[in-house]
Amino acid sequence: MNDPGPDVDDVAEARDVTDELARELDRAHVFHSWSAQAQTSSLVIASGRGCRVWDHAGVEYLDFSSQLVNVNIGHQHPAVVSAIREQAELLTTVAPATVNLARGEAAKRIVARAPEGFRRVFFTNGGADANENAIRLARLTTGRDKILSTYRSYHGNTGAAIVSTGDWRRVPNEFARGHVHFFGPYLYRSEFWARSAEEECERALQHLRRVIESEGPQTIAAVLLETVPGTAGVLVPPPGYLARVRELCDRHGILLILDEVMAGFGRTGRWFAFDGYEVRPDLITFAKGVNSGYVPAGGVIIDEPIAAGFDERVFPGGLTYSGHPLAMASIVATLDAMASEGVVEHARAIGETAIGPGLAELADRHELIGEVRGEGVFWAMELVADRETREPLPAAAMGELKAALLARGLLPFIQDNRIHVVPPCVVTADEVAEAMAIYDEVLSAVGGAS
Amino acid sequence: MNDPGPDVDDVAEARDVTDELARELDRAHVFHSWSAQAQTSSLVIASGRGCRVWDHAGVEYLDFSSQLVNVNIGHQHPAVVSAIREQAELLTTVAPATVNLARGEAAKRIVARAPEGFRRVFFTNGGADANENAIRLARLTTGRDKILSTYRSYHGNTGAAIVSTGDWRRVPNEFARGHVHFFGPYLYRSEFWARSAEEECERALQHLRRVIESEGPQTIAAVLLETVPGTAGVLVPPPGYLARVRELCDRHGILLILDEVMAGFGRTGRWFAFDGYEVRPDLITFAKGVNSGYVPAGGVIIDEPIAAGFDERVFPGGLTYSGHPLAMASIVATLDAMASEGVVEHARAIGETAIGPGLAELADRHELIGEVRGEGVFWAMELVADRETREPLPAAAMGELKAALLARGLLPFIQDNRIHVVPPCVVTADEVAEAMAIYDEVLSAVGGAS
Ligand SMILES: Cc1ncc(COP(=O)(O)O)c(C=O)c1O
Ligand SMILES: Cc1ncc(COP(=O)(O)O)c(C=O)c1O
Repeated sequence: MNDPGPDVDDVAEARDVTDELARELDRAHVFHSWSAQAQTSSLVIASGRGCRVWDHAGVEYLDFSSQLVNVNIGHQHPAVVSAIREQAELLTTVAPATVNLARGEAAKRIVARAPEGFRRVFFTNGGADANENAIRLARLTTGRDKILSTYRSYHGNTGAAIVSTGDWRRVPNEFARGHVHFFGPYLYRSEFWARSAEEECERALQHLRRVIESEGPQTIAAVLLETVPGTAGVLVPPPGYLARVRELCDRHGILLILDEVMAGFGRTGRWFAFDGYEVRPDLITFAKGVNSGYVPAGGVIIDEPIAAGFDERVFPGGLTYSGHPLAMASIVATLDAMASEGVVEHARAIGETAIGPGLAELADRHELIGEVRGEGVFWAMELVADRETREPLPAAAMGELKAALLARGLLPFIQDNRIHVVPPCVVTADEVAEAMAIYDEVLSAVGGAS
Repeated sequence: MNDPGPDVDDVAEARDVTDELARELDRAHVFHSWSAQAQTSSLVIASGRGCRVWDHAGVEYLDFSSQLVNVNIGHQHPAVVSAIREQAELLTTVAPATVNLARGEAAKRIVARAPEGFRRVFFTNGGADANENAIRLARLTTGRDKILSTYRSYHGNTGAAIVSTGDWRRVPNEFARGHVHFFGPYLYRSEFWARSAEEECERALQHLRRVIESEGPQTIAAVLLETVPGTAGVLVPPPGYLARVRELCDRHGILLILDEVMAGFGRTGRWFAFDGYEVRPDLITFAKGVNSGYVPAGGVIIDEPIAAGFDERVFPGGLTYSGHPLAMASIVATLDAMASEGVVEHARAIGETAIGPGLAELADRHELIGEVRGEGVFWAMELVADRETREPLPAAAMGELKAALLARGLLPFIQDNRIHVVPPCVVTADEVAEAMAIYDEVLSAVGGAS
């Protein structure tokens, strides 16, 4: 008797079984980030391509989260997958003290995107340890202790990175010293009672100046800023703000670290977010977009005077997987593909022609939307219970929205009272239209269209 | 005319050119761990297999370092490489909040090796962030601040991990609070004037008891120990020490974190180093051997009462690449291959039958060797200028030794005045013999044979 082969229903059932197995193993054995363990998600993701992901049963989602805003080049880019497969055949891992070609090639491509004068890269495994090492470099270079960062920020979960972080995640983790927080510009919820972008900018600068003076400028090693604060709400800085922070730093011999972990490598429609401002940092931290997270990697791009300070002096930082060949090969392939395929330019254009206009239209139709802001593929819709008072939409309603978006096949990025609209840089106009229709439907269902 | 094809000399020359290119890129663009940048190594590693690595010109080295003591399963194990290649085709990266099958499968295999009652794993990118999160779990569980760890230790380069670290690397990085250091047992250089292993053990325990009492037991969240301190010199603890540290902890409601980053997953000839002692930790940190570093990964295995404390309470820690699919697939394949090929048992046997006896013989022949100690594939030769005074061999002589070993084709692990003999777990008796002959020759050349 011939085997008739499995029929389609059997296959789907087998895949459902796999999803259920994945869930069971997860519940039994996986302890999750930033969660109460009894309330973690049961969404299974088995594979993906471009802006789409699937579970084992073939249920598809349009990924408007880029996972944790890292899959800039889209899921499973064939050239990057090939590069990982090839490097895996050649050499997966090597000690950081040795010389490895992939590492040099990756570093060369990264500095090529940085401002003139940046020549060297220190590689880490992700964003947190990138910031740890930037902070270390700043302290050792200046001989000063304090790191100034904003309350509306996230810089990673390790010792110094989590205490640089301004949001609630810092509070249970305050075991590092030498960190001071201030408020950055955020007109929609101004800390400074400002009514225009110019006023917000001026007042935010005056506030920072006061904090620096009060802390003692000679005690401050660095100001650490996300160029565009991401998790905090895609807080695009007003024109002039960053340039004048730089001036303030220069006046006092303070270094400027720009955290480009989320904002960098295409997210804003530029290679670095700071390319859109008249500002030159001393240290640039990166992760996520540099290789879309295909292999864990991050790092610090170091301005040459700081790097040269460690030519004869031992740099007291390091990690086993610094410059890991598999990660490096994925960086090389990602940056080459992004360049040759015009991924960054595409992100800019799609933001201008599709996402921006689409969100503006949604804001016109839905009272729930208090503000939309962003650029490139880096946007937030701020949802409010009341447009006048700007009272944030309550958590329960946000939960409903999230479930409704997922039910309609859109994987959203939800943070507090906001939906961050953060698809891969390669998102098409059709996919944007599809997402806008889903947002529209769900906002109508939850909030009622105007 | 037919193309005669490149002749062998041309190929070798091309490969030399590649080595030189790798060096040039490295010098120009790569900032290295724990180094003065003008003095970094020019050793190129392009590929490897088992216990051997090569540069582009085909120059071969016998790897008795396992890189940074991480390549336990050997270089380029075909089953692990295949698993990485397959997962790369399927899904490289996914957000940690989702469910992914490879992650559950990896966690299941890890807890299967842990003591009864351990059920859940929190995944990180390496050893430092594993310790960061273990420390976080201990503090949040106990509501206490202080972490006690030894001066002779290394726990990673991030905020809390580097200040837990006892060695010199801590000193320029002391920006975390809540860390206290004490001395562990180390008979060869006893801090307690002990003359036997029993005396060293008793006195080390009395010292720890005094430190705990003096710090205030009710302020101490955890004692954090490398089960076998690795970088500090492969300091195998005396019988009974760890069990009695556990008793001390229990008496005061202090948690015990065992750092198995270097010692775990086969290095000692056991799955966990602590399997050799009557001790049950509360938290186990791992990295390196769990997947031989083929993809950056680490984590914390959490005893169930601690994990369950976060079922309803939010765990305030996390990272973008927690439970990264590519890393997870490499863990699954590594642990399966180690089990089916008897890699851990082999490590124990080769330690007992070849490395231990080989090193004992060297110690007989060379005045330079003050002590050899270790087990499995985890050994140290302590080199001294004088056997009586035990004065460490000076750095210049150690540098000579290193160069001489490399020149003879052995990639060594040199730390302070010690040669750590730490090949992959899969090292053969022939390879051990080859290495012993090289050590012998080089020790004769530098020290003169007795
Ligand atoms: C701006 C920024 N910095 C740092 C980090 C930390 O990166 P990682 O999670 O890789 O440690 C993040 C992560 O979301 C981030 O958004
Ligand atoms: C015992 C121990 N803990 C932690 C670490 C840090 O691991 P990583 O370099 O992956 O951060 C190391 C690294 O050598 C180690 O040996």
